[in-house]
Amino acid sequence: MKLQLVSLQFVIKWLLICIIVGFVVGSASAFFLVALDWATHYRESHTWLIWLLPLAGLVVGGIYHYWGASVAKGNNQLIEELQKSTQTIPLLMMPMILVTTVITHLFGGSAGREGTAVQMGGALADNLYLWGSKLTGKLGFKRDTIHFDRKIILIVGISAGFASVFGTPLAGTVFALEVAIIGKMRYEAILPSLLGAIIADYVCQSVWHVGHTHYVVSEQTTLIPTSLVWAMLAGAIFGLMGLAFAKMTHAWGNFFKQKVSYPPLRAVIGGVFVAILLIGFKAERYSGLGVPVIVEAFQKSVNWYDFLGKTFFTSLTLGSGFKGGEVTPLFYIGATLGNTLSTIIPLPLSLLAAMGFVGVFSGASNTPLACTLMGIELFGAESAVFIAISCITSYLFSGHIGIYASQIVGGNKAPMKEINEFF
Amino acid sequence: MKLQLVSLQFVIKWLLICIIVGFVVGSASAFFLVALDWATHYRESHTWLIWLLPLAGLVVGGIYHYWGASVAKGNNQLIEELQKSTQTIPLLMMPMILVTTVITHLFGGSAGREGTAVQMGGALADNLYLWGSKLTGKLGFKRDTIHFDRKIILIVGISAGFASVFGTPLAGTVFALEVAIIGKMRYEAILPSLLGAIIADYVCQSVWHVGHTHYVVSEQTTLIPTSLVWAMLAGAIFGLMGLAFAKMTHAWGNFFKQKVSYPPLRAVIGGVFVAILLIGFKAERYSGLGVPVIVEAFQKSVNWYDFLGKTFFTSLTLGSGFKGGEVTPLFYIGATLGNTLSTIIPLPLSLLAAMGFVGVFSGASNTPLACTLMGIELFGAESAVFIAISCITSYLFSGHIGIYASQIVGGNKAPMKEINEFF
Repeated sequence: MKLQLVSLQFVIKWLLICIIVGFVVGSASAFFLVALDWATHYRESHTWLIWLLPLAGLVVGGIYHYWGASVAKGNNQLIEELQKSTQTIPLLMMPMILVTTVITHLFGGSAGREGTAVQMGGALADNLYLWGSKLTGKLGFKRDTIHFDRKIILIVGISAGFASVFGTPLAGTVFALEVAIIGKMRYEAILPSLLGAIIADYVCQSVWHVGHTHYVVSEQTTLIPTSLVWAMLAGAIFGLMGLAFAKMTHAWGNFFKQKVSYPPLRAVIGGVFVAILLIGFKAERYSGLGVPVIVEAFQKSVNWYDFLGKTFFTSLTLGSGFKGGEVTPLFYIGATLGNTLSTIIPLPLSLLAAMGFVGVFSGASNTPLACTLMGIELFGAESAVFIAISCITSYLFSGHIGIYASQIVGGNKAPMKEINEFF
Repeated sequence: MKLQLVSLQFVIKWLLICIIVGFVVGSASAFFLVALDWATHYRESHTWLIWLLPLAGLVVGGIYHYWGASVAKGNNQLIEELQKSTQTIPLLMMPMILVTTVITHLFGGSAGREGTAVQMGGALADNLYLWGSKLTGKLGFKRDTIHFDRKIILIVGISAGFASVFGTPLAGTVFALEVAIIGKMRYEAILPSLLGAIIADYVCQSVWHVGHTHYVVSEQTTLIPTSLVWAMLAGAIFGLMGLAFAKMTHAWGNFFKQKVSYPPLRAVIGGVFVAILLIGFKAERYSGLGVPVIVEAFQKSVNWYDFLGKTFFTSLTLGSGFKGGEVTPLFYIGATLGNTLSTIIPLPLSLLAAMGFVGVFSGASNTPLACTLMGIELFGAESAVFIAISCITSYLFSGHIGIYASQIVGGNKAPMKEINEFF
């Protein structure tokens, strides 16, 4: 029974920690979602704000240039700390990413929110842990577990942020376990990750009453041999799309770094291009999160090129230095690409939109199980098999370069030769 | 694009292999389920057959004693081959486990079916691969991948068997990846595992029209702080139950090995006890798979001691040498234990039955994600969070001894101290 007593101690300890972290991170996500909602609606009713996007770029770029060196790596910084615990994430990460993301959205940049939620979660959790361990240290507790526990606490912060910003606790749980290493998952932190995700999601939805968009897969189909092959084809296309998105974002980033030596100017130039193109082409459907277009993609045919437009505007927005996440744009790109594919692939339109929604994200983030669970949480268990085919095939075709440059390759995606270690 | 071409080659190769393996294993499962159904109904209408259980034990024990030395380790043999590829599983495993399981059920032994399905799947897949590689070798293809591919093919066989016997393709996919090592999962075989599971399930359900029992969680509840803690308590109890079941089965096994030196006699003696007790106590609800009692446990209160009765009869049946699986009895034990717990835990009866159904299995098999997915596939996404809490908490409390003795501990379940490697 010794192991059970250790388990009991472990569960109680992490339940208490997760209540605190989950409450704080869930509240931060709720505040962020409300702020984002306000920014989105305010911009929609004041479209001239887009003309100020270059100025917003100067502010965002300037903030990170002058004060943000220690937190500029964002999600990658969290992933690196997960891989090798070195030092506490500066708490500064949280207000900086929050403010700059809201600015990005207020002025019409094309970006997401998961990066923000995950960075807020990671920074808050890590600092709460630091304060807590100082406090318990003063109270006389030993602290030999600090580096190990820090990895768990970062996982809790990431899962709490992800779960609460999307309303998908199981996806958050697995995302935080999956994201650090491609092709490998370990279970040491599985319970803390689950508790952080559940509690943060509960706090956001039930304490602060901040809800999430519902997407409906209106038409199901059964799996037959032909639909299996079509679904795999769609998944492969989603994977290539995820790869293309990651490459394009990296390419814009490198382009601006080479051409513009003064960092705050990068987002100004990016902002000029985004603003002119958004307004010139009346392309406002590509600004901000784009949730209305995502909803539309589940209901009727959208422009066949919407996925290209969103890829262009988001990679340019983020690559030039604006802030936010990649994930909601990836949902947008996936849902509209799935919608477009429904003209040639004989699967229901809303099902293909759902498969793309999570499938492109799966390829770009290399987290196939988290994305499968997210698809089930958002679209229901009826679509589960098609969702899984999409996410796993996409993962296989998206290569080893994802949106998170710091991910380590822990396992071959498509092993054709003997390797030394399998398990 | 080189990696994508390798991926394409990998996907096409494994799709073709999985079509063959999935068809054969799905067909075997369908045949097995029909045979099991026949045996169960025949016994139910000829209850005197239970008196012949000792004779059945002699036959089952004798078959394995005289002809089965090379396949007697069953599931553990597959797990060991996954860990270290040494030699092809004898095809003999398949007819032996099939025949002896049907005999066990026909004469009223208390056992399951997943062990049988998984062993049939593993043996068939491994031998199909052997023939295939001999054939392609004659055709001039190189075979330097044989040991590596064998592990993937075994995973495909296990996932195909598991998925088709329960009608849960995603659970089968993850079960085969999770089962070999406690606390670790690698993704090299994730697509083949998914394809094997989906195709075998399709063949069983849609080609042969062999369906599965539906369990209904009639009453949902929302997660609030108190219900989270209650759900964790239930999960911990399910984990301890899983551990107790595993220990009791091992204990009966050791007892018979020590006391009875002639192996075929063990199941005779076990059969005498099981038959006398089943008939003497009118305890037929503990014989066979017990599906009707599982269904009942979702609908109304069952005997509070049903989980103890089933634990006793199954551990005695399997520990003395009868054949079958442990999983359906674990579903039975979990569903009835959850049902009993509903008298003290304020969660809906059918939800607690569902949580126990997968939760006890999760603890006994150390496969928390597979069990969570199984819960979602069987009971729907509405129960997903409660299911996950149950499966993951149970996994934490069930210790490192599960029903599969050959599992390696790859990660600490409740790490309280720094360990060298995390990911």
